[in-house]
Order: sequence, then C-alpha cells, then structure tokens
Amino acid sequence: MSAAGPTRKRSGTLAASKAEDVDSKWMKKALEEGKKGHPSPNPHVGSIVVANGELVAAGHHERAGEDHAEITAIKAAGLKAAGATLYVTLEPCNHHGRTPPCTEAILAAKIARVIVGCRDPNPHVDGGGIDKLREAGVEVKVGVCEEEARKLIAPWTKFVTLGLPYLSLKLALSLDGRIATRTGASKWVTGSDARARVHALRAMHDAVAVGIGTAIADDPRLTVRDAPGPSPLRVVFDTKLRLPQNARLVQTAREVATLVICNADAPVTAEEELVTHGVEVVRAPSSAEGRIDVSAALHLLAERGIVTLMVEGGAELAGSLLAARLADELHAFIAPTLLGPRGRPGAVDWAGPDKPADAPRISNPQWELCGTDAHVFGPLSYPEKNPTADA
Amino acid sequence: MSAAGPTRKRSGTLAASKAEDVDSKWMKKALEEGKKGHPSPNPHVGSIVVANGELVAAGHHERAGEDHAEITAIKAAGLKAAGATLYVTLEPCNHHGRTPPCTEAILAAKIARVIVGCRDPNPHVDGGGIDKLREAGVEVKVGVCEEEARKLIAPWTKFVTLGLPYLSLKLALSLDGRIATRTGASKWVTGSDARARVHALRAMHDAVAVGIGTAIADDPRLTVRDAPGPSPLRVVFDTKLRLPQNARLVQTAREVATLVICNADAPVTAEEELVTHGVEVVRAPSSAEGRIDVSAALHLLAERGIVTLMVEGGAELAGSLLAARLADELHAFIAPTLLGPRGRPGAVDWAGPDKPADAPRISNPQWELCGTDAHVFGPLSYPEKNPTADA
Repeated sequence: MSAAGPTRKRSGTLAASKAEDVDSKWMKKALEEGKKGHPSPNPHVGSIVVANGELVAAGHHERAGEDHAEITAIKAAGLKAAGATLYVTLEPCNHHGRTPPCTEAILAAKIARVIVGCRDPNPHVDGGGIDKLREAGVEVKVGVCEEEARKLIAPWTKFVTLGLPYLSLKLALSLDGRIATRTGASKWVTGSDARARVHALRAMHDAVAVGIGTAIADDPRLTVRDAPGPSPLRVVFDTKLRLPQNARLVQTAREVATLVICNADAPVTAEEELVTHGVEVVRAPSSAEGRIDVSAALHLLAERGIVTLMVEGGAELAGSLLAARLADELHAFIAPTLLGPRGRPGAVDWAGPDKPADAPRISNPQWELCGTDAHVFGPLSYPEKNPTADA
Repeated sequence: MSAAGPTRKRSGTLAASKAEDVDSKWMKKALEEGKKGHPSPNPHVGSIVVANGELVAAGHHERAGEDHAEITAIKAAGLKAAGATLYVTLEPCNHHGRTPPCTEAILAAKIARVIVGCRDPNPHVDGGGIDKLREAGVEVKVGVCEEEARKLIAPWTKFVTLGLPYLSLKLALSLDGRIATRTGASKWVTGSDARARVHALRAMHDAVAVGIGTAIADDPRLTVRDAPGPSPLRVVFDTKLRLPQNARLVQTAREVATLVICNADAPVTAEEELVTHGVEVVRAPSSAEGRIDVSAALHLLAERGIVTLMVEGGAELAGSLLAARLADELHAFIAPTLLGPRGRPGAVDWAGPDKPADAPRISNPQWELCGTDAHVFGPLSYPEKNPTADA
C-alpha cells in the first residue's frame, strides 16, 4: 500500500535498466508458472523460454519424479530453444537425482542465455549449475526478482536447510480471541466461507495437525471436502495416546493417511489398537515437562518428506509452537462475535511476551473478507528479543 | 456484497415507481445532509427543498438550540419555497421547544408537498406534525427511505424511548483477543492509524468512559488529539473512588470535563479531593455484587443529556455491558499480533454464551484497514435466547 513513485535513473544506465526491466518482466511470468503443481518434497520452480522477444514455451515442476520446470519448457520449445533465453526461478540442478541434470539438457538444447531467480539454497547438494553453464559458454545472469524467487521456495528452503517443515498456524476465533464457549462448544465460530478457505489451505499442505485436546473435543475429520484437491496427511500430537478408537480420524484412517505422534512411554496397547485401524503411530522424544518435544516431532515429519504443515490447534500446541518460534506463517479467521468465557484459555495458551512490541506479528498482513469473517495471513516475524522459555 | 438484480415492475405501477424513485433520490440527499452537525441531545435531521425538479436549498440541525433542519432549508430557499417540495428525514415538530414549531414555518412558506423519512419516535412529545400539515392542505408522504431515516436517529431514539445512551463498545486487541501482555503492558497493541481513528470516534460521541482498572493501568487522557473535533465528556466507572489524584484524567479535569461515577458508600474524603481538581463525582446505585449498577449509571448519564457514549474498556466493564445487553455497537481494532498471556482475562471478561450461535455478533460487519490493523464495526445483535445472568 506504499505509493512507490518512478525512480530517477542516470542516463548512462538507461540501456542496462531497460534490459533489467525486460528480464524482470519475463521472470515474473516464470514465477507465476512456478506456483502451479504439487512438487513436494521438491521445490516449486517455474521456467519459460523466450526467443526474439516472444514467449516460446513455459513449464513448471508438477510433481516429484517428473520433469523439472526447465526440462518441460525446453521440451515444449523444441527447435526454438536453440539460441533462445531460458528464465528459471531456481538455479538449474547439476546432479543426477530422480531425473538427469538440467544443465545437460540446457546445453544440449543450445540455450544461449540463462536468467536465474535465485541460487540453490540446498546445503546437501553441490549446486554448481550456474558454474557449469558458464564454463560451457552460456551467458548466465543470477538474482532477477530474487526476493520473489526466494519466497516461492521458502517452505522448501526451511525444509532442506533446517530439516523442519514450513509451519502454518491456523486459528479460527472470535473477536475476543476465543475458539470455544464456556461449555467447550466450537461449532461454528466462523462461517462457511471461512471453512471452505480452510479446506483449500489444507489441500495446499503436505500435512495438517491438531493437538489431542482438539481431536477429542471437536472430533474433526481434517479432510478436504469444501474445496478441490487432495486431503493431506493428518497428524495428531497425542502424548499419551488418548485418541479414542471411535474418533473420526481413526475410523477413516484407511481412506486418508493418519499419523499419531506420542511419547516413548505411551501405552503399547493403545498403539496396537490404533494400528489395527490403519493409523500409523510414531514415538517422539519428550520435552522437559513430559510432553512431546514439538521440535523433535517436526524433525520426524520432515524426515518423512513433509515440507509444509498446517497446525489447526488447539491452544496448547499453538502456544508451544509460538514460544519455540516454530510457526512460520499465521492464518487467522476472525468472526465478528464475542464468546468471552472467563477462566478458559483463548486461542493461544502460552506465557507470551512482556511488551506488545516483543510479540510475534504478521509484519505485512493481508486482510481479506470471507463472508462476514476476516482472514488475515502472512509470515510471522519474531522480535529480536528472546521470548520467555515458558511454553 | 449481495448482487441485487433489477426488480421486475408491473406496467401498471410504473408511474408510481418512478415517483417513488425520485422521492428516494432526494431523500438520500437529505439523509446525507442530516449526518452533518453535532445536534446532541437533539437528533440528526437533514432537509432539502426541491422545486421544478431541482435542488433549491439544503439544511441540517447543526446544534441544539439552533434552527431545525427544515427551518434552515426553508430560510435558504427564500421565495422559491412557495409551491415547492420539502424533504425531511424526521417528522417536523409541532410543539414549542427551544425553537418554534417547524409546522408553522412550513405552512408560512407555502410548501406544497412534504416528504418525511420516518415519524417522530419520541414518546414524550405529542408528534402530530404530519396531521397538522395534512389538515392545512399540504400533501404529506411518510416513510421514504424509512430504514435509513431510522438509522440516522438510532442513538437519539434509544435515548428518548429508553432513557439510556446509545452505547458503542471500543476494543483494541491482538489477534488472540488480548489487550495487554502478562506484565500489563498495553502500549501499543494497535498502530497509529487505529489510534487516530479512535480519536475521530471520540469526537463523534458525547462522552467516553473507562473502568477504574483501565484508568489506573493505562493512565489515559481520553481526549481528541490525533483527529479534528472537540473532546467529549470523560467518564470513569470507579466503584470505590480509587482514581489517584495524579492521574492525567484528574490533572486535566479543569480543561476537559471529567465525571467519576461511584457507589453510594465510596469514601467522602476521596470525593472531596477529586472535586478540588475540578472532577465531578456522581453516586450511582450498587449492583447485587456491590459494584456500580451499570444500567443505573447509564440512566444517570442520559439524564445529563449524554445521547452517545463510547466505552473504551476495560475487560470487566465491557463484560458487564455485554452480559446486560447494553452495548449497541462494537468497534474492534485488531492488530496482527499474538500476546496470549495465560491466566489473564482477554478483552472481555464475562461468562459468555453456551453456544457460538448464542454469542453477541456484528450481523453486518464492516471491515476496514487501519495501517496493518483492521477495524471492524457495526451494530451488535443479541440472539433471542437469554444470556446467562452472570456478568
């Protein structure tokens, strides 16, 4: 919402600026292309081929194991690729994974110029794609629309650099920050438009999770019903394996993958019962307070290829994640109503910061209407000052 | 946001519909005009004079004691009023108050047609304005844009029919419904844009009020500084007269009128000290719990001519007002941040409803951006089911 005026350019750099503008324009197209597909656990990547100032082909990485974005674009371009410019949002790979190196395909197609959004942040592979192309005489420019290019792969960057899923915290609450009335009733605080949007968000994540309190109180299905797309893996944080066998999550575990994370000393009989219903049970290390160590549990999920995780409550789990700064993004759905039960925790149960300025915050929030509710979302930023250890 | 298509009209009523449309168009202009001024404790009224299909003059009730809206419009119209149509949002008065009856002026000006938005709801005066005009041969039509006309005078209608101020509840809170951190720090949860809007809201009210907890914790000034307009009367609900003499409210009581409402048994010495600083002290009946009976206190304010009151917290006062269904309108300013202190009440401290569907709600909320915060506002509706008596 800032009004950025035209910037003054020195006349000597006018030509360079114009080339820059052209490259930015095409890279934005590649970035749009890159948003398509469900490539998890690979990153979102988009690519286009431009020849004689015209778009020749576009491609994105649709699914893990299938062609990378630049391969799809080059294949679509056919003979027009020779001498053309390739725009790709992420540095082309130079190693044999499930598919051959993209650098080889780029050289084979005789691409003359490669414009890269951002370098490969993966510390586990020897990037070298850019060097390889330059050594072969291809002109390579790196860092065009770099911020947007990094944003496109933010979940995957967290996944490959920290071994943790990119975590979205979803809260559906009243104006006074409540998720249930004093009787525990929580259906429905927000309206049908907000619920449909939650289902659409679920379809965009590899997994969704709730705490055991919410699993018992709400008996949710956590599936995608009011939006198109597949249901993600369902995860329950359940220290003592209290999830009842007649829970909807358990009863539908053969149709939709369901994982329960518990402590090492959770009862084996409960595990056996859950397993007979098709639920997978994983034991995680305990925290100092004897609960699940959420950080360790998230590492376990990342090891299973979960790049994006949406946590849908309850208050205790949300509080633990915020206190440990593990939540990357917030999605709050706010109903214009006041539930206000005295003596019960609100949507987030944690000690919180000392000063408002120290609180986690969406720095550049997007506010959108969902029926009569609002949906506010964006990446969470945590002030520099250390939060309290109390989780 | 609903897409209302054109309605089908039967051909026989086309002419009538057209006259209806013309009258609605002019009445909307009168309604716009009526929003101007600060006529409290009188109602907002707007009026226009139309002759030969053209706007001749407009007027509104600017201030109590000054000309009523239709008088201003008729005076401005001069000789053109003769034979013209007068649009007025509220039934013209027919009694001698601080000004002579408007009906006399309308007849004297030889107005031919009078279009009225809504009838006078005041049970304490014998309306009769419409009858008087009709008896004198003036054509009178009543109920054009009636809903909007009633909305324009909603605060005054509550004031004259129930002897209570129209009460707006203002909350400034985090996404999780908190007004302060665990240390009690509350400056600043919302940003400067939201604060400026709160000041603008203050200027539109006859009085603003806080509970004693907020008065002590925040030491607010409750004046209008970041917006144009006068500072309203400042009111503190202070059962035991705990307001300290060095509070800003007390120290500035000679510049901005300040009223403290306490119980009958509050210490007389405290009252005497406050009075020496220019504070006015009023004793109200007690509730069953020994606190101020908020309903009785509001009646006292109405008796002093307070038509519109904005309550700015704290949680206990807000809770009492909601539980007693005394809040007519809500203004919530929501910062995209999470304060979450465990074990402290949120923005509203009350028992609340049993089911989300029973909660007070803004039925047609307006969501507006205020910097990075949101402002949601609108009249509160209370479900039919009785709320709990617990306040």
